[in-house]
Amino acid sequence: MTIKDSTIQKFLDDLASSAPTPGGGSAAAIMGATGAALVAMVCNLTIGKKNYVAVESDMRRILGEAEALRRKLTGMIEADVDAFAKVMAGYGMPKDSDAQKTARTDAIQAALKNAATVCLACAQTCADVVALTRETAEKGNLNVVSDAGVAVLAAHAGLKSAALNVYINANSVKDKAFADAKLAELETILKKSGAESDQVYQLVKGKL
Amino acid sequence: MTIKDSTIQKFLDDLASSAPTPGGGSAAAIMGATGAALVAMVCNLTIGKKNYVAVESDMRRILGEAEALRRKLTGMIEADVDAFAKVMAGYGMPKDSDAQKTARTDAIQAALKNAATVCLACAQTCADVVALTRETAEKGNLNVVSDAGVAVLAAHAGLKSAALNVYINANSVKDKAFADAKLAELETILKKSGAESDQVYQLVKGKL
Repeated sequence: MTIKDSTIQKFLDDLASSAPTPGGGSAAAIMGATGAALVAMVCNLTIGKKNYVAVESDMRRILGEAEALRRKLTGMIEADVDAFAKVMAGYGMPKDSDAQKTARTDAIQAALKNAATVCLACAQTCADVVALTRETAEKGNLNVVSDAGVAVLAAHAGLKSAALNVYINANSVKDKAFADAKLAELETILKKSGAESDQVYQLVKGKL
Repeated sequence: MTIKDSTIQKFLDDLASSAPTPGGGSAAAIMGATGAALVAMVCNLTIGKKNYVAVESDMRRILGEAEALRRKLTGMIEADVDAFAKVMAGYGMPKDSDAQKTARTDAIQAALKNAATVCLACAQTCADVVALTRETAEKGNLNVVSDAGVAVLAAHAGLKSAALNVYINANSVKDKAFADAKLAELETILKKSGAESDQVYQLVKGKL
């Protein structure tokens, strides 16, 4: 059974357990998906309201984008578990002969690069959700503007959580050019999205 | 069916829909519970490890506290929906006669006070999770320290999300002494927990 099909109670129990997955990476994707769902909620509660006819086409566009991001992030809940399993499988390979040692190291390194890439994609997708929240908070139904605020908090927490997993994996990658490129990309995302998140939160707070 | 027994996919679908609940308040409680579950995960992956015998009793204490906070927060997923339903029920009361108008206003005001109290309790419980993360990050199994980092991010996002719902409800309460007391309590929690969250995140990042 995939994680998205488990109940919230079971997911939290599994998260709390000593099983290595699900862990923070899956939690990051769920926070991002929660942010995307809340953006969609604000859109759905704005579309069709007579006081918001002027922004209806904007809300329809944002809704489509938010739902696409939510689908991506929901898929990433499982992608994180798969990426971690590949790293663990690498570490579990035999290391008796030199040939085995080389094969094992190669498998671990490939799995770490894959994990860094998967976590960076999650970070970027969470940042994409953050980027949708400003217009949602500015133009959406004022009665549910706090939900746009929760959206930005959830998506930004997802981004920073995914970032921690990029750091872990990239720090163990021996290909420094690869690791540095991923880390540089991450810093750009974090900087832009951090400033944006603070602004949207203050915007929402000012409207309450 | 309660929200905790719905699948993650169904919860996200319901969150995104035009139904007024679940909304940001339930999302806040889930983020707090996610933080508590990740604290428990780090404890469970530290207890029994020979390199961590010295901190085993600390980890057992933190585990007990984290699991108690998780149970509280899981209950708050539903409490938010109930509190919102009471506010809506108040607004739905008849207002044809003066007596009806008075009864309606009283019901709305009582429901708003209750909602502010429920959201403030969620904020405080998320802050209690944040308070557990520092020792978890300091003493827990280094292999899963990033999960302590995701824990603090999730719990702090839950706190700030719950805070938005305290603002909304408190701002509509006519009893200014009540509203001001709740808002003052909230500011104290936010200030302490905000500083703590930043410190724990930096501590975790430094250990990766």
